[in-house]
Amino acid sequence: MNDYRPPVDEQRFLLLDVLRTGEILPTLPAFTEADADLLTQVLEEAGKFVGKVVSPLQAVGDAPGCRFEDGRVTTPPGFADAYRAFWQAGWPSLACAPEDGGQGLPWVLEGVLYEMLSAANHGWTMAPGLLHGAYECLKHHGSEELKARYLPKVASGEWLATMCLTEPHAGSDLGLARTQAVPQADGSFRLRGTKIFISGGEHDLTDNIVHLVLAREPGAPAGPKGLSLFLAPKFLEDGTRNPIACERIEEKMGLHGSPTCVLRFDEAVAWRVGEPGRGLNAMFVMMNAARLHVALQGIGLLDAAWQKANAYAQERRQMRAPGALRGTGAADPIVRHPAVRRILDTERAWADGLRVLAYRTGIELDLARHHPDAQRRATAQQWCSLVTPVLKAVCTEQGFAGASRCLQVFGGHGYVKEWGIEQIVRDARVTMIYEGTNEIQAIDLLARKVLPDGGQGLLAVLDTLARDLDAQRDAALLARFDALRAITRELAAASAHDDTLPYEAADDYLRAVGLALLGWAWSAIERTPGAETARWTAPARAAQLRVLPEFELRLDILRTQCATTTPRRSAA
Amino acid sequence: MNDYRPPVDEQRFLLLDVLRTGEILPTLPAFTEADADLLTQVLEEAGKFVGKVVSPLQAVGDAPGCRFEDGRVTTPPGFADAYRAFWQAGWPSLACAPEDGGQGLPWVLEGVLYEMLSAANHGWTMAPGLLHGAYECLKHHGSEELKARYLPKVASGEWLATMCLTEPHAGSDLGLARTQAVPQADGSFRLRGTKIFISGGEHDLTDNIVHLVLAREPGAPAGPKGLSLFLAPKFLEDGTRNPIACERIEEKMGLHGSPTCVLRFDEAVAWRVGEPGRGLNAMFVMMNAARLHVALQGIGLLDAAWQKANAYAQERRQMRAPGALRGTGAADPIVRHPAVRRILDTERAWADGLRVLAYRTGIELDLARHHPDAQRRATAQQWCSLVTPVLKAVCTEQGFAGASRCLQVFGGHGYVKEWGIEQIVRDARVTMIYEGTNEIQAIDLLARKVLPDGGQGLLAVLDTLARDLDAQRDAALLARFDALRAITRELAAASAHDDTLPYEAADDYLRAVGLALLGWAWSAIERTPGAETARWTAPARAAQLRVLPEFELRLDILRTQCATTTPRRSAA
Repeated sequence: MNDYRPPVDEQRFLLLDVLRTGEILPTLPAFTEADADLLTQVLEEAGKFVGKVVSPLQAVGDAPGCRFEDGRVTTPPGFADAYRAFWQAGWPSLACAPEDGGQGLPWVLEGVLYEMLSAANHGWTMAPGLLHGAYECLKHHGSEELKARYLPKVASGEWLATMCLTEPHAGSDLGLARTQAVPQADGSFRLRGTKIFISGGEHDLTDNIVHLVLAREPGAPAGPKGLSLFLAPKFLEDGTRNPIACERIEEKMGLHGSPTCVLRFDEAVAWRVGEPGRGLNAMFVMMNAARLHVALQGIGLLDAAWQKANAYAQERRQMRAPGALRGTGAADPIVRHPAVRRILDTERAWADGLRVLAYRTGIELDLARHHPDAQRRATAQQWCSLVTPVLKAVCTEQGFAGASRCLQVFGGHGYVKEWGIEQIVRDARVTMIYEGTNEIQAIDLLARKVLPDGGQGLLAVLDTLARDLDAQRDAALLARFDALRAITRELAAASAHDDTLPYEAADDYLRAVGLALLGWAWSAIERTPGAETARWTAPARAAQLRVLPEFELRLDILRTQCATTTPRRSAA
Repeated sequence: MNDYRPPVDEQRFLLLDVLRTGEILPTLPAFTEADADLLTQVLEEAGKFVGKVVSPLQAVGDAPGCRFEDGRVTTPPGFADAYRAFWQAGWPSLACAPEDGGQGLPWVLEGVLYEMLSAANHGWTMAPGLLHGAYECLKHHGSEELKARYLPKVASGEWLATMCLTEPHAGSDLGLARTQAVPQADGSFRLRGTKIFISGGEHDLTDNIVHLVLAREPGAPAGPKGLSLFLAPKFLEDGTRNPIACERIEEKMGLHGSPTCVLRFDEAVAWRVGEPGRGLNAMFVMMNAARLHVALQGIGLLDAAWQKANAYAQERRQMRAPGALRGTGAADPIVRHPAVRRILDTERAWADGLRVLAYRTGIELDLARHHPDAQRRATAQQWCSLVTPVLKAVCTEQGFAGASRCLQVFGGHGYVKEWGIEQIVRDARVTMIYEGTNEIQAIDLLARKVLPDGGQGLLAVLDTLARDLDAQRDAALLARFDALRAITRELAAASAHDDTLPYEAADDYLRAVGLALLGWAWSAIERTPGAETARWTAPARAAQLRVLPEFELRLDILRTQCATTTPRRSAA
């Protein structure tokens, strides 16, 4: 039983009315037909597919989940059929280029599709979710020969793909990876080593699996610059099985619908993708898109939890509500109780605001790839580079924390499995970890992106957003922007004297940026015609009252850190 | 494998050095011998027992967990032996009165014991944890005949007990309970109805189980005033099985070591405990102690998670730490990385500060029961009444959220079961729900306890605490106390015009009170000789920098609510 309903009308409102996507995208030569009608039509079809095919498999994804026996992985009943239907309907190639057999639609549509899919069934969605990064890697770095053999099958989703990065001793620090790639006379390589945490490393969903593997050629330098990227398929072209053994699947807190594999490469046949020593670079091409995917998982999971909690709160009656909220019976639906209303409105404030930011970032991703003007592409690229780590961290934090708040609405019933809400909390927890932990996102933002140019890039993003704002209506938000500008300069100055400060301040800084952006998102919603209904005004009020004021808390912490750091160091 | 080590030295420091328990308790006639030596000795023995007997059973408590077949519950391997050892060593009766066969030691010691037990094995600890409320209920409300038959076995722990309150349609609102109690000619009753969420409702740990059951006599008024409390044993005195059937155990998110039962009472023989219609009152006698128990579970689980994360962070090497924190190898232990250090210091700031508050509340509970002076008993009772709901909510929130932060230290390894950290997160989640959800604690605090006397009781607690503070050293904290006094008065005034305001403001208010109290706790630690070492200064700095400033956020939200509520209502 899964009651998730893709919120197509609301997504459409945010995408088309608030963000005007149907006007922006058709100005690009690549998307002249992607107007409001087409976007709406695709969203509606996606919503139908997700609701009908993927959502009903949510519970079996948790139990029985995936099973492992003798090196083989059996996915939950129905998963393979659903994947076949997904592939055959052409959903994997929605945003792939027409020359690769794709439909050439904007990335932002793929993003919204994956928000729905993750909400409906996070475990199942992991499988196709990995295709898109592999497609980008291969497309941009693969040789013509490799592309001819693998790109169409990966683009269409006929074959699924993996990213084999982590090793037991090399997680956040991939530079420690030891897997060896030994060159052969015919130009191929033989891979030797063990990779862990490989999502979809083995399964029964497709006839073949295309593994992209980080490994080190003999004599390569230590550290990240010695890593190259290789492609190793589960089955070779002559049909023989490549020696890539799934040794076990992990027993995890959640996400039981996605097999997390330990893969042993035992002289596996492989070909290099891109230049030697440029393995991490080959992956950067898809990093923003992959992280934005994870951010949308967080939003989807939060919405799925919200929908469950809201449905329960409408039905469940306990105690009489206070004052004017009181009904006439012995007990009111708990949705009338302020304690429950507060949770529902606040989590919706997060979900809607984060949607606006994630969709906007999806649009910028499309602009960065397809805008004819190089300057506009660069601006869009800057947006993606700065905002993506913020969204990855904030959306996944809220996906977990917000799902847990929604669980609270159920009282004791939330803690038992039959309602399905606790599964969402467990499933959501991993999103804070994978694709770069949220702590690494924060370091990426502050230490690698904001400080190196003295904060100029971030200030430019704020300037762009401020143009939409009104000095009077948005006075509080503009003051937050000013405070963020000031603390950015202060951090840049203080970090010159203290090279650990950026690492100590990173999490609070990311959070402050996220809340400032969220303030912009809610301002954008509130000024859109159609947002005057209770559907939007209730979360808008919760955003202003309960969510956005955390900005001042983060600024306060950051100011204390800047003020105390220099004396502390110089005294040492 | 469970590596939890009861932190006896640190608990002793907080209990004896910071809170001077060894000087306070012996002034009471009931505890003349409970000096520092005796308290230390009991703590050390408790630590040994917990570490040796209970802690090793943590993993089996999760899997296989409890099994259910044909109405019987089998607890995990080793649970029954450990319980027998616990009972035979006299631990259940630590704080029971000597006249009931107990050891007559202070409640606060039992509290610390349960912190250790919950940290070591939350699931196992649920079984004896329920004894103490049953003991208090029976002792204060049972007839002499009932007490003669059941009190000694409950006090000693030879028989375990349950509290049967919840029904499918009656959770937070017990007044909706429908279970019937039909009087018999011999003065006994027959119970008919179904109770759910009964922890330890059926198991193989003891020869008998004593159920305390809320039910309604024929003709009793609707609502909470029609509820009486009844005692129904699993086995009657003649050895026959009372018709109380365990229909199933719940499949839960965690806490698999504790069977959560659906019990069907099918004309079960029972006796009333206390007066008719006073069932909820009979339970109030143990409510503060029971909620404080749950608060200590939160602290214990947080500490257990912290210990795991700290151990992992010392061993795991990834990347070089920044600046002066950098070591000499290719990768530093992650404990050197600020992102990890921040989590560890911040969670310790929570755990230590909350310990001080929980132990202090335990001492007040002892004073409320045993101080010869009625005025002092009343002050102590007021402390317990006001601070207990705050601690129940704040400690359990942090038990879950903090354990999740500690999981983050493990990266992907935290999400797989073998490290045991994800079990703590799952186990901890329930503490935010049971014994009154955290939202109900907030309503209890603000609407039922603070506002009815215009905030006078809370202001008196703050006055007492302020006496320990120094105008200069604690200036920031004293300003927070002032702000809390002002908002309390403001809420009292605004609530006179708006009877839903207390319910809307309750959660932020509870949180503000908790943070103010936590500030006092850290001030108490910091001024204690012995707290100058890094063990205490690192979390002290984290408390001041990262934890306590949330107070201003909550005040800001509360001020906005007070300022906007009256116009909003009068416009409606």
